Amino acid sequence: MNAFNVNEHMQALGLQAKTASARMAKAPAATKNQALKALARRLRESAEALAPANARDIERAQAAGLSAPMVDRLKLTPKTIETVALGCEQLAAMPDVIGEVIGMRQQPSGIRVGQMRVPIGVFGMIYESRPNVTIEAASLAIKSGNAAILRGGSEAIESNKALAALVGEALAEAGLPVEAVQLVQTTDREAVGRLIAMPEFVDVVIPRGGKGLIERISREAKVPVIKHLDGNCHVYVDDTAELDMAVRIVDNAKTQKYSPCNAAEGLLVAASMAESFLPEIGAIFAAKGVEMRCDPAAARILRAEGALPPGARVVDAVESDWSEEYLAAVISIKVVEGVDEAIAHINRYSSHHTDAIVTRDHMHAQRFLREVDSASVMVNASTRFADGFEFGLGAEIGISTDKFHARGPVGIEGLTSLKYVVLGQGEVRS
Amino acid sequence: MNAFNVNEHMQALGLQAKTASARMAKAPAATKNQALKALARRLRESAEALAPANARDIERAQAAGLSAPMVDRLKLTPKTIETVALGCEQLAAMPDVIGEVIGMRQQPSGIRVGQMRVPIGVFGMIYESRPNVTIEAASLAIKSGNAAILRGGSEAIESNKALAALVGEALAEAGLPVEAVQLVQTTDREAVGRLIAMPEFVDVVIPRGGKGLIERISREAKVPVIKHLDGNCHVYVDDTAELDMAVRIVDNAKTQKYSPCNAAEGLLVAASMAESFLPEIGAIFAAKGVEMRCDPAAARILRAEGALPPGARVVDAVESDWSEEYLAAVISIKVVEGVDEAIAHINRYSSHHTDAIVTRDHMHAQRFLREVDSASVMVNASTRFADGFEFGLGAEIGISTDKFHARGPVGIEGLTSLKYVVLGQGEVRS
Repeated sequence: MNAFNVNEHMQALGLQAKTASARMAKAPAATKNQALKALARRLRESAEALAPANARDIERAQAAGLSAPMVDRLKLTPKTIETVALGCEQLAAMPDVIGEVIGMRQQPSGIRVGQMRVPIGVFGMIYESRPNVTIEAASLAIKSGNAAILRGGSEAIESNKALAALVGEALAEAGLPVEAVQLVQTTDREAVGRLIAMPEFVDVVIPRGGKGLIERISREAKVPVIKHLDGNCHVYVDDTAELDMAVRIVDNAKTQKYSPCNAAEGLLVAASMAESFLPEIGAIFAAKGVEMRCDPAAARILRAEGALPPGARVVDAVESDWSEEYLAAVISIKVVEGVDEAIAHINRYSSHHTDAIVTRDHMHAQRFLREVDSASVMVNASTRFADGFEFGLGAEIGISTDKFHARGPVGIEGLTSLKYVVLGQGEVRS
Repeated sequence: MNAFNVNEHMQALGLQAKTASARMAKAPAATKNQALKALARRLRESAEALAPANARDIERAQAAGLSAPMVDRLKLTPKTIETVALGCEQLAAMPDVIGEVIGMRQQPSGIRVGQMRVPIGVFGMIYESRPNVTIEAASLAIKSGNAAILRGGSEAIESNKALAALVGEALAEAGLPVEAVQLVQTTDREAVGRLIAMPEFVDVVIPRGGKGLIERISREAKVPVIKHLDGNCHVYVDDTAELDMAVRIVDNAKTQKYSPCNAAEGLLVAASMAESFLPEIGAIFAAKGVEMRCDPAAARILRAEGALPPGARVVDAVESDWSEEYLAAVISIKVVEGVDEAIAHINRYSSHHTDAIVTRDHMHAQRFLREVDSASVMVNASTRFADGFEFGLGAEIGISTDKFHARGPVGIEGLTSLKYVVLGQGEVRS
């Protein structure tokens, strides 16, 4: 006999979230900001109180044999806590977009028609390891006037419970419903299945994690999903690129960090630039141990006598390399004729996440921006900038590679909807 | 042996649409407008040439025993043709939103970040009877830079083929790909199943028709759906409403036309207004043969001696009446305490389509606008205004009662997406 019924638990969370969402939607900006500031304060005050719960998660993870980087991601250090506390305060300082009315114009009938920004309602968030995501998601829910149901990774359950308790206290302190942010209290996998299949309570789910998890959720969800599957990002070095700038951007896009989804996985070089550019970037890649998977033209240049230091790893690319998201010290390299072939290659193989051109040619820049069908398109900047904070959104709940609703880094606006408002003086339709 | 393979046909349409969509996305505004104007001209020139195809559809429909109103909806009269031709010209005269860049701002890193409006790609449109929808959808596809695959009703197949041929000629005349607008050439139902399950080719489907069709498509689609299921719209007469205005608006919202989704199905009246207002509107409803399904308080007033003329149909409402979309000369009527109960009732029973308040109270108006969770919320105007043309969108491909992506009447912007554009001068992430 199982005393804890997952279905009943999720049903209860859903109903409570739905009820809380109506109160959150009409909460004044000052009240929401008060909750965010209270949360920041309580986080800082609780750095020590959080330690035992976090230590239990870490012990369990080590006992289970998780890798050192995985265990690291679980850690709630004073620095992590300060970062999320600061994040709450930054959100509190941002203008409130809820209730904003845009485009109000009078129509020939006399009615005035505009659009009001309102919360989506309830979002479900599914994530792994890092317990700080609990606070990021909670603070975004509060600021955007939504209710949230959070399902963190089982490995961080103790830390997440302790953090969620702080969120509840902060909500209560501001007079907001504590059910506005709820943590799923079980690590049972069935809870995820329920969370994504309650359209009567949950308006959207946002999964963050491995590709397998996201694919499964997209397939099985009965509600809209904000997600990205792959970050197969490209930098194209155009025939008019400045050599130094191209080297700096490609180096940064590939090697500044290997694991983020906005790191470059593919390098395209205009034929006229290949002889001068490839050996320069190749030397940097060689020094940093980056493996280069090259098409024949690039391989010929990089394998030429003296082009690269001994030990440089130049490998022949196969078809699957053009589609792959390595998330590692590997990059695919292809020489293209020019901007046309670059755009065509990217639109065929890219995951529609982020793609950049390095160029001085205004026409090529404009064409790249307009024709590359990706969530973020860039001229003369590193793909690593594709990020909610770098884009000025103030926060990021995820990055979307879908074209619907939210596209690219998703901040507060992605958690809102625009409804039409009509102001009349008694007009009727004739 | 079936010489015509539905799967292969749909696959071919999908691939051709995808290819055409890339060319449409970069087509200059002038070229798209040229195609629209050519289409308008060809429609007017072809009024006679279209007649035989339309006559065959009508004959077949009559032979199949379709009702007179259904047959009427099939008719391509000179007036229908002039209306759709004018619609094309109006679209041509509208500004082009594709390529528009909004919110471009410099970030602390030096990069400038904004959002560019781009076409969604390919939309599939599924509709019934009225052949003029073929032209409406085609012209919206052209203006918005999308490709479209149109699946009209089997009863209008001959008319639709003739109209689609004109669209193709207009596209060719402007130098645009004729595959930008394709009509499904078979009436086989399997074609719909394929159209909604080709995410590799089709970015969104828009069903228009009966609730059964839309429910089936929503359930089975493998791509996003822009849809509305029900239009259970309300008018709430607040305790400070002007009596004349309230009568005018409620009368118009219910009786100006019974079949549209934006007609009112429910009337809520503040208790303080009920004694004065209900007999007035009740007399109008009685005169027009509108059946009134009343809660006990409303029934008591409307059944009082001399309140209504003999023959007025006052019926006791049952629970299901509050949720029903009658699309007929029937209205549900409930007396509520005030704006709180009205908002709660609407948020519980409304289909989130369109709801209106009649009031002089500024606070009540603001609360209604903010708290009623519907696609269109109105103050002192008839719900019948919820329409793309009345809202100034220039055209309407449908009305969405979902909160995601497009909400309310959907015009050209609903067929677009915003991607991030980043302009740098060589910035890298530190």
